[in-house]
Amino acid sequence: MKTTTVKAWLFDCIRDAGIKIVFGLPGDYNFGLCDEIETREDLRMMHMRNELNAGYAADGYARATGAAAMITTYGVGDLSAVNATAGAFSESVPLIHVVGSPDSDVLEDGKLVHHSLMNGDTDAYLRMHEPITAAAERITAETAAETIPRLIDLALTERKPVYIEVPQDTADAEITLTGPEEKQEVENVDSWWAADAVHKAVEEAERPVLLVDVGVSRFLQEEAVLQFSRVYQLPTYQTMQGKSAFPEDEPQYGGVYGAAFGPEYIRKQVEEADVIVTAGLLLSDFNTSKFQAELDENKRIDLQPDHTMLFGERIDQALMTDVLRELGKRESARGKVELETPKLVKHSAKNQRLSSTVYYPILEEALPKGGILTVDTGSFSYGMPYVKLPEGCRMFSQGSWQSIGYALPAAVGAAAAEPETPVWCMIGDGALQLTVQELSTMHVEKMAVKIFILNNLGYAVERRLHPGRPHADYNDIPLWDYAAVTAAFAPGAVVDRAETAGELEDVLAKQVDGLHVIELVVDDEMDVPFHLQNLSESIEE
Amino acid sequence: MKTTTVKAWLFDCIRDAGIKIVFGLPGDYNFGLCDEIETREDLRMMHMRNELNAGYAADGYARATGAAAMITTYGVGDLSAVNATAGAFSESVPLIHVVGSPDSDVLEDGKLVHHSLMNGDTDAYLRMHEPITAAAERITAETAAETIPRLIDLALTERKPVYIEVPQDTADAEITLTGPEEKQEVENVDSWWAADAVHKAVEEAERPVLLVDVGVSRFLQEEAVLQFSRVYQLPTYQTMQGKSAFPEDEPQYGGVYGAAFGPEYIRKQVEEADVIVTAGLLLSDFNTSKFQAELDENKRIDLQPDHTMLFGERIDQALMTDVLRELGKRESARGKVELETPKLVKHSAKNQRLSSTVYYPILEEALPKGGILTVDTGSFSYGMPYVKLPEGCRMFSQGSWQSIGYALPAAVGAAAAEPETPVWCMIGDGALQLTVQELSTMHVEKMAVKIFILNNLGYAVERRLHPGRPHADYNDIPLWDYAAVTAAFAPGAVVDRAETAGELEDVLAKQVDGLHVIELVVDDEMDVPFHLQNLSESIEE
Ligand SMILES: Cc1ncc(C[n+]2csc(CCOP(=O)(O)OP(=O)(O)O)c2C)c(N)n1
Ligand SMILES: Cc1ncc(C[n+]2csc(CCOP(=O)(O)OP(=O)(O)O)c2C)c(N)n1
Repeated sequence: MKTTTVKAWLFDCIRDAGIKIVFGLPGDYNFGLCDEIETREDLRMMHMRNELNAGYAADGYARATGAAAMITTYGVGDLSAVNATAGAFSESVPLIHVVGSPDSDVLEDGKLVHHSLMNGDTDAYLRMHEPITAAAERITAETAAETIPRLIDLALTERKPVYIEVPQDTADAEITLTGPEEKQEVENVDSWWAADAVHKAVEEAERPVLLVDVGVSRFLQEEAVLQFSRVYQLPTYQTMQGKSAFPEDEPQYGGVYGAAFGPEYIRKQVEEADVIVTAGLLLSDFNTSKFQAELDENKRIDLQPDHTMLFGERIDQALMTDVLRELGKRESARGKVELETPKLVKHSAKNQRLSSTVYYPILEEALPKGGILTVDTGSFSYGMPYVKLPEGCRMFSQGSWQSIGYALPAAVGAAAAEPETPVWCMIGDGALQLTVQELSTMHVEKMAVKIFILNNLGYAVERRLHPGRPHADYNDIPLWDYAAVTAAFAPGAVVDRAETAGELEDVLAKQVDGLHVIELVVDDEMDVPFHLQNLSESIEE
Repeated sequence: MKTTTVKAWLFDCIRDAGIKIVFGLPGDYNFGLCDEIETREDLRMMHMRNELNAGYAADGYARATGAAAMITTYGVGDLSAVNATAGAFSESVPLIHVVGSPDSDVLEDGKLVHHSLMNGDTDAYLRMHEPITAAAERITAETAAETIPRLIDLALTERKPVYIEVPQDTADAEITLTGPEEKQEVENVDSWWAADAVHKAVEEAERPVLLVDVGVSRFLQEEAVLQFSRVYQLPTYQTMQGKSAFPEDEPQYGGVYGAAFGPEYIRKQVEEADVIVTAGLLLSDFNTSKFQAELDENKRIDLQPDHTMLFGERIDQALMTDVLRELGKRESARGKVELETPKLVKHSAKNQRLSSTVYYPILEEALPKGGILTVDTGSFSYGMPYVKLPEGCRMFSQGSWQSIGYALPAAVGAAAAEPETPVWCMIGDGALQLTVQELSTMHVEKMAVKIFILNNLGYAVERRLHPGRPHADYNDIPLWDYAAVTAAFAPGAVVDRAETAGELEDVLAKQVDGLHVIELVVDDEMDVPFHLQNLSESIEE
């Protein structure tokens, strides 16, 4: 038995989830909570330029470390961030969102306080968060001891955001903690049984393949899936969204499966296998070339976080984590596999002007080992999956949610999580405009991020997705001078501009210590990588 | 009977609501809707830098013209804007939010498309919008003919946002319109009866007063309330949020009633009257000095949009609009009233450094006749209500919602609505950081807005609202060079910096044609106007 305050307990639990930084903005309803963070040794508040960006930063942090926390104030704060929270839900990112709210009696009485809807509906924001969180709850002093760890645990196990609303008075309330309940480890018989079935199927298969998807990274199963791939020597591929869940220098790695819009020979290798094991598969439109992937259920074994599908038959209790752990311990009689991983072909003369066939191979050669790439939705999100990542390099991108502007604040989160790691942010000139002020946060936090801005005069991806009116006015953007933009928010940062292959190579060879903004000038506003080009051509208008 | 498409009908109805500009961003689910806007003669899409800002701009536009429209794409767009929509709800601003969504069958089948939650819950955003709109509906081709005008009418009459989701295929669907239903005008007996009672009470009163609040501007009753005040020669006051609902050069106008934190003599004049008529009163914390207003129900007549309270008795069908219209036609035996309107005292030498007692009187003298002021939450929102507005000058501020960053995009909306009107944006250095990229929209739209940035080194209002830790780190912000910021987004715009009374006077006397950024340098980071100072002193920690 121990006595503490609700706010101390809340941040103890957040710290125990491995979190060191809480992203957010203050407001009068969360002063107490912010003070608690600011006065503790084990946590730090990272003050962002607005709440949406705080949410994106937390998302980036969570992808790097496993979980993240954000703090906002009632109504204006949490609703400003709601798009990031929904994104974290869609993308399965555990984001613990702490919201400071008015005193309990004010909420109960529906008083007409600022940041309320002025109709007494003080629970509205809780209800609004229900569809986009694993749970959205208002803390009370009576139940805080139990509720807080339960909500955090939910976020960590379900890999989803949770919304924790703490009324001002409740934050300061004293509570008594009892010891933690002992968790009973139950032996998971179904997983063992499923592993056995997978083993048998793979051993007997002639040409089995493994397709790694986003669920693997989100449920932190990269190691387990690698071990599984090695034991059974499975030709292994990644989906667009699975990118960076599997090390691309593994001998049995075969490249990215882009379904109908990716390379045809990879599509064949995957779809024509006799057993297709998929791990953490998400049959999203982005992953499947708009539902054109042919991953026949009858020859597919699908390992999911909460169940396994065995050739169309569902085994409810067989969890991906358990099945993979079990399979990693087995032995296989299968022979060694070696695949040729596709590398992009560099075929540009120094004076060649930049286009996607020119800059991707150059970027590929320069990517940082062990680095983090935050990749925004647009040309880059269609092109970067096909760039071979060096050892330990991770890519954070929103293949499901696809909210533009994400990559810049997400890079703040990644750099905050791993100050020593090279972080590259790859963002379109259109996307940049939504969240550009985070350059300022990078500046004051002294983050040595490299920011690649693809200057192709507007929304190339939209021009390509709407062949009927590619030059609609709404696809143009105000054109910015990136040196001036950088000077405004990050004075002193190095700004480079590359128009040709040679210039880009020179810029990448440069040793820059701090923030480095690199503008890639692409003349043809319709230029996009092949996957997007194929998608574009498939659209009839 | 006429045949048209859903999208043409939608924008016909929006145009018929008096709207000329639709604020927003494109996305692949709203291409058809954006094309419709772009190819019509009677509407224009104003492309903003992000969706939250589009929502704020629409809010500003609606306050200027009576109603506004915004367009976003499914999920990432509407949720990015949700804080502006909730703000419009809290502030009673009619905002027609059009959202382009995936094809109807995709929505019905819960397909895992981009911008969805990846769990098949394709109605989530509709549900999330329910608490913050008068209605949130998905349009179908079958019912569009009737639903669209009904929703828009709801926004206009209830003065609240509505959310109109249009699936891609539905946007293009052909529909047949029948003639509009004839509206039956019902004579409102209760309003007549209530007007009679008000007449009697006011005529018999010894010292009656009229207190004008935010409901008057939101329900467009400024003219009616002025007429009422004139007929009965009522000493008239405004609340903090009522500011600019009543012309301040009227002889019977007495100033702003700030309850416990405003001038004591005004408080007495209002609270000690024997009959207090309130029009559109909102008993919010901001208006009432945290519920300290003493506006005794038993001597109060409260005219509300949907009812009237007569000395504590509710008359359901007596609507403010009808009651005021009726009262405007009456005659009164009351004698002429002339009040001394408080003017701020200018007592600064030219070399005096800026503080709130110095700059408010200077601003007061310079305010533009017939102009629009968008005032952000912070020092300015506590100080500007006490500045006497010149003829026809309106002030747009969020006394209820209080979301910082609002004033800059709201100024875009105001300037878009009235290109010939002088628009001044008054914003804190803290608030500016949330939405700064709209300087770029002002630049490309060639808007001659004057932007006053209060540079007081961070969040002064928060320092004052939290006397326990005024110098918490979270109240500091990255300090920006406003000349550099302006150069980044609005190259060529004039930037001035005023540190003293004389400098501010000189800057205000300057003739500037385009965008004009004016930095007010306040040395004392704790300096705030008296209302906020009084609020601060009332907080015990
Ligand atoms: C918040 C948000 N608003 C709108 C969209 C719709 N959208 C998708 S891609 C895109 C344009 C991206 O353009 P840019 O960043 O310049 O990329 P590129 O030109 O390289 O394709 C837009 C507006 C979105 N995905 N997210
Ligand atoms: C979107 C949003 N986030 C946070 C807050 C909490 N908040 C209220 S006022 C304020 C600071 C405003 O500072 P500034 O604009 O510099 O004004 P001033 O210093 O003049 O008071 C903050 C962060 C808010 N109202 N809205």
